[in-house]
Amino acid sequence: MKAEIISVGTELLLGHVINTDAVFVARMLAELGINLTNIQMVGDNPVRLKQALELASERADLLITTGGLGPTRDDLTKRVCAEFAHKKLNVDQELLNALKDYFVGHIFTENQISQALTVEDGVIFPNDHGTASGLVIPFVQGKFILLLPGPPRELEPMLENYVKPWLAQFSNQVIVSWTIRVFGKGEGEVDDLLGELLNGNNPTVAPYASNGEMFIKLTCKATSEDDAVLLLEPLAETIIKKIGNSAYGINVENLETAVVTELRRKKLTVGTAESCTGGLLAKRITDIPGASAIFNLGVVTYSNEEKTGLLGVNSDILAQFGAVSPEVAHEMAVNIKRKANADFGIGITGIAGPDGGTEAKPLGLVYIGVSNHKKTIVYKMEPENIYRGRKWVRRMASSRALFLLKEQIDYLADMGD
Amino acid sequence: MKAEIISVGTELLLGHVINTDAVFVARMLAELGINLTNIQMVGDNPVRLKQALELASERADLLITTGGLGPTRDDLTKRVCAEFAHKKLNVDQELLNALKDYFVGHIFTENQISQALTVEDGVIFPNDHGTASGLVIPFVQGKFILLLPGPPRELEPMLENYVKPWLAQFSNQVIVSWTIRVFGKGEGEVDDLLGELLNGNNPTVAPYASNGEMFIKLTCKATSEDDAVLLLEPLAETIIKKIGNSAYGINVENLETAVVTELRRKKLTVGTAESCTGGLLAKRITDIPGASAIFNLGVVTYSNEEKTGLLGVNSDILAQFGAVSPEVAHEMAVNIKRKANADFGIGITGIAGPDGGTEAKPLGLVYIGVSNHKKTIVYKMEPENIYRGRKWVRRMASSRALFLLKEQIDYLADMGD
Repeated sequence: MKAEIISVGTELLLGHVINTDAVFVARMLAELGINLTNIQMVGDNPVRLKQALELASERADLLITTGGLGPTRDDLTKRVCAEFAHKKLNVDQELLNALKDYFVGHIFTENQISQALTVEDGVIFPNDHGTASGLVIPFVQGKFILLLPGPPRELEPMLENYVKPWLAQFSNQVIVSWTIRVFGKGEGEVDDLLGELLNGNNPTVAPYASNGEMFIKLTCKATSEDDAVLLLEPLAETIIKKIGNSAYGINVENLETAVVTELRRKKLTVGTAESCTGGLLAKRITDIPGASAIFNLGVVTYSNEEKTGLLGVNSDILAQFGAVSPEVAHEMAVNIKRKANADFGIGITGIAGPDGGTEAKPLGLVYIGVSNHKKTIVYKMEPENIYRGRKWVRRMASSRALFLLKEQIDYLADMGD
Repeated sequence: MKAEIISVGTELLLGHVINTDAVFVARMLAELGINLTNIQMVGDNPVRLKQALELASERADLLITTGGLGPTRDDLTKRVCAEFAHKKLNVDQELLNALKDYFVGHIFTENQISQALTVEDGVIFPNDHGTASGLVIPFVQGKFILLLPGPPRELEPMLENYVKPWLAQFSNQVIVSWTIRVFGKGEGEVDDLLGELLNGNNPTVAPYASNGEMFIKLTCKATSEDDAVLLLEPLAETIIKKIGNSAYGINVENLETAVVTELRRKKLTVGTAESCTGGLLAKRITDIPGASAIFNLGVVTYSNEEKTGLLGVNSDILAQFGAVSPEVAHEMAVNIKRKANADFGIGITGIAGPDGGTEAKPLGLVYIGVSNHKKTIVYKMEPENIYRGRKWVRRMASSRALFLLKEQIDYLADMGD
């Protein structure tokens, strides 16, 4: 089976939004072993959408549209696709009722009804996160148009929960992907360490850089999931041995998930005191469901007054070394640990910029203190050769803090604590 | 002049990377007033790339490829495009020397030479951040293929510094876009309010939903920026009148920027006390450069102990009404205002989920207190009919808090405070 994606939306052609949908759909197709050869993007234009459908129908069996299913006038995908497939659109009473339920307490405008339309022989995919459901329109023997909503937040769970299971009927092999997450090593270094492993055919090994981290994707085709795992397991082990400590997890979503899971398992808690990251670290920890079991208190002490006042940082130390110093990071970590009555305390202070850098304390310099009942370490995050912006510095500092915390949890566990 | 983008790379079809390049190029074309009607994505496959070029050449004058210009085997864009245009590839001596300079101290492999290839009548765009330069291949009278490198970090500055100035010769108009941001109204409602305005031709009016907010994009073609503004100004005014208070800014990046800018202008400060949002509000405020002028202290009191201990919430109130209650949100707002010695205090408490919901206090219920020197209000964020996840609840609660704060700043200003 061959697939083609048609992403619909003038906003794509104006560069107002990035086509995340195509990535989610492409990934799902790859996992199912369904061949995707082309992606088209067109505006909210019925003529051009029809042309795109014609072209795609010549080279693929499965046409997947994303976007244009909302209630507004420029949401025309359903109408155009139905016309293209010579199908009549009818109101699905169940969908309409669900829609009306959704709008209880809100204004239900007439234009919403378009979202309850379906075709004969159509398959409906529920939208658990919005009002535009997905729809399969069969158009000739064995060929389908699959209409999916545009908002990524709605599309992603729909793919996972409804579309993928439905599509599985067309695939006779599975593709299983594992991801090894790596923090603290660059692309070139990871590439070097992997060496010959990159030439593997099945499984394939591909490293990617993303958001200041690396992830290594192992992808395996097999006739069953079990067979795939048999090939993936030893490979993952080899890779982790090569990468070392920086490889912090397999199939873990991110650093914060790894850390919260570890803390929960070991029944440990952490408190955070942030300056330059301004709450980002606390936010990332509490992004994870169940964080309340391991996190009681975070403070964002942005000013010197709050560092000494609320957090009790010694004002002599602050005056002598300045707010951005290893000494203050140390104090912040120790004090928040005590204040939160936690097993670990983290203190972060640095220069996120874009203003406030000096020769002695340049943009991107951050000190991170991590304290436990045995010791307190302070990590110096050196500025990079090129300052990559406030967002980047804050992201990297919070990631580093999570990574340091993970190391300490592991270390204490190794010590038998 | 009509343009079409062809993004080349198997990684795009596997969903390994997101097509950022298309966004950059699309945005540049929009700014130049060059009409972009289609984007295609194909793999590293010479046959399919040729097909894409043929198709694009039928409907556009300017074909822009991104990706496939590197030194490795699967980088075939230049060869295929030259063939398509019936041009011979020659080594450009200057490019070759520059390449060799770049590799001083590193190994210069033979395959790098492909990056020094050009065609007769070709225009070369230097790559200041990598080794693959850009190239214009004229292919028939007045039609061009523009080959651009794939890495966004290399592409973006090349567009700004070399491609845009070169393309300006083909454009005799500008396109100016304005964005009106709206919080607290849904897509259907905004659509309804805009009504006939959506049928405008120049400027066009298009509403988009994004991340729990709406934005309305006004786009105007004109011969000069000044002419465009003359058309946009009265339209924006009409729209804001129709939308009402929910329209919180024109050409403002987001709520946090609007709030921080307002606070800075009025020399006011805010303190935050968060429970369910876990630092997200503080993070969003401190995302904005210069936030230190308006923000000294934020606390994340995740446990009841910290709410009473650190924040001084009355423990009787906490016991009587529970942590998720208007009374506690009120206390949190008042107490953090005092503790931070700020003009405004915000307290947020609620059930982000996915666990912890009850009949009386369901998932998604959040109370937000906002306190100033005159009064304290508490906003009840009702759960939506469908629980849309922890991330969504946290996002909406922090957005609502920012919006409430913005309202209070405006209100106090109106009162002459």
